[in-house]
Amino acid sequence: MLNIAIMGFGTVGSGIAEVISGSYSLVKSRLGDDINIKRILDLRDFPDSPYANRVTHDFNDILGDDSVTVVAETMGGCGAAYKFTKALLEAGKSVVTSNKELVAAHGVELLRIAGEHGAHYLFEGSVGGGIPLIRPMNDSLAHDDITEITGILNGTTNFILSQMGSGMSFDEALAEAKRLGYAECDPTADIDGHDACRKICILAAVAFGVLIPSGSVHCRGIRGLMSENIAAAAEKNRAVKLIARAKRLPDGKIEAEVAPYEVVMSSPLYSVEGVFNGVLLHGTMTGDVMFYGRGAGSLPTASAVVADIIECGSKHSCNKPQRLWEEGAGLYAAPESGTVIGLGDRIEI
Amino acid sequence: MLNIAIMGFGTVGSGIAEVISGSYSLVKSRLGDDINIKRILDLRDFPDSPYANRVTHDFNDILGDDSVTVVAETMGGCGAAYKFTKALLEAGKSVVTSNKELVAAHGVELLRIAGEHGAHYLFEGSVGGGIPLIRPMNDSLAHDDITEITGILNGTTNFILSQMGSGMSFDEALAEAKRLGYAECDPTADIDGHDACRKICILAAVAFGVLIPSGSVHCRGIRGLMSENIAAAAEKNRAVKLIARAKRLPDGKIEAEVAPYEVVMSSPLYSVEGVFNGVLLHGTMTGDVMFYGRGAGSLPTASAVVADIIECGSKHSCNKPQRLWEEGAGLYAAPESGTVIGLGDRIEI
Repeated sequence: MLNIAIMGFGTVGSGIAEVISGSYSLVKSRLGDDINIKRILDLRDFPDSPYANRVTHDFNDILGDDSVTVVAETMGGCGAAYKFTKALLEAGKSVVTSNKELVAAHGVELLRIAGEHGAHYLFEGSVGGGIPLIRPMNDSLAHDDITEITGILNGTTNFILSQMGSGMSFDEALAEAKRLGYAECDPTADIDGHDACRKICILAAVAFGVLIPSGSVHCRGIRGLMSENIAAAAEKNRAVKLIARAKRLPDGKIEAEVAPYEVVMSSPLYSVEGVFNGVLLHGTMTGDVMFYGRGAGSLPTASAVVADIIECGSKHSCNKPQRLWEEGAGLYAAPESGTVIGLGDRIEI
Repeated sequence: MLNIAIMGFGTVGSGIAEVISGSYSLVKSRLGDDINIKRILDLRDFPDSPYANRVTHDFNDILGDDSVTVVAETMGGCGAAYKFTKALLEAGKSVVTSNKELVAAHGVELLRIAGEHGAHYLFEGSVGGGIPLIRPMNDSLAHDDITEITGILNGTTNFILSQMGSGMSFDEALAEAKRLGYAECDPTADIDGHDACRKICILAAVAFGVLIPSGSVHCRGIRGLMSENIAAAAEKNRAVKLIARAKRLPDGKIEAEVAPYEVVMSSPLYSVEGVFNGVLLHGTMTGDVMFYGRGAGSLPTASAVVADIIECGSKHSCNKPQRLWEEGAGLYAAPESGTVIGLGDRIEI
């Protein structure tokens, strides 16, 4: 029996419970074992939930429970989530997460601690929702030299840009995104590119083994984009997308940025519409490969977290050591100005 | 030291040697071990190759060599390849392959034999060239219920259709594909859809656990398509693609077909152009996910085979049992006529 705990019973956390109960027999067969959600940590109570009696407000109920070996952290942020994750890994428990803020800020340290204590720290759900991305990069493409990553990594801004392409103003499109639950009350992290920026730093670390500080990355969002920008691109058969990209330079530095681009029609990213995400990788041997799917949402993201739970909780788990990352402060290179080949022109606002 | 052998030193087989030597340090680090191509089986000699002294014409040099534990089969066909693969698996050696004919015809038996002898039979390179596809389906999406697969699985026909979209006739486009090395001298298997048909049967088996006989599948290729068909689709903002699709029906049967479709612009398959492949999966939890990349070519396909070599040769290999397939004769359902939702109209010629 694999006993797990969930920390943070919001959109993704409750989705994990839903995926496990909805796919129970598949999860069990892949695990080679039974699975039980033993504890749920949240500040709130959920009296109407079938999991009401598993809810605790005390982190020590999870940390001190030797039967719990895998913990899903879906609290978000770098406060309590950081403190709890560190304590769990130091206790030899594996942690799986969708918390991109934490991975982007403390991934180097948390991977190191996990390795030192025979635990795993997995984060497939932190980038691209349910799209299999980090595991294929680590497994299927591990022997290839990935030189470049170009992605649409934020569904909220991509939805807004798609709506603007149909004639809405930025404010109207943002209001529509809020109405449909695609944008949060405070959409700053999405609109200004910080969310995409954290995600490209995580993908660059997976590909290059070096985590560049997200605060150092040239990052511009879509605030200030006008319908005129979208229309001007459309006249050239181009679509405006918020692009997050990273590239390893010959000197070992990593060029990265988040910025709106006019994407040319021949790019596979051109037709990534609405809340979907797309990530294009260039491998020396494999050539261009793209992964596409729902970049957010309760069940897709929870699904990615459940895949990680299976990976570290499986009876057949191979305890393959995870690749460690190096700190990349000092390795960041600002992007060159001008057109990016195969993509199109950066939009300067 | 991992000693491997390669059977068939053609396009993909020689590509494997090129990937291993070109990515030597990455392969070694992912393997956790050194790697050595000990034997190469081919009817020909390669006096100018750096591997000339490893070439043998006698299969028993590989079968009888206890130090060789992983063998790449890139011979193609169901004759000697079948006989050799079976003997190797029965001897407990793992076999990795790009041979879609063999996997589609004998996958059920070969997976069973591998399981009985503690060996692996892996075939990432048999579908979609270098695109990570089968491993993500088996790992990242294993806990999800994949209900539908829709793909552009043959680069040759997709290239021809793209060229016809630019105004060429079928014959001109085929000649161009041959000139560029995208089509073989006898392009029947591509043009008439048999290649795509084998691949959709393999993907359906990975998703549903049941291998339907490829000979039973309704299969139409692109022979007879006229420029007028392409132009008529374009007027409706649609693109003609050779679609291979499979779907699990509520009664447990598997609907599958290969046929040219008018693909609507909102489908992510619409913009898969030229020799590229795209595979769209629908998972109950994950929603729509697409994988895109070069569907053929020496290095991309060889790259997928090398990823399989690493999986079964790694020191950290977990010996996770492979999922077995059931024989699907009798479980095939012919496709319904009419439009496929999210795709477009089938073209009747």
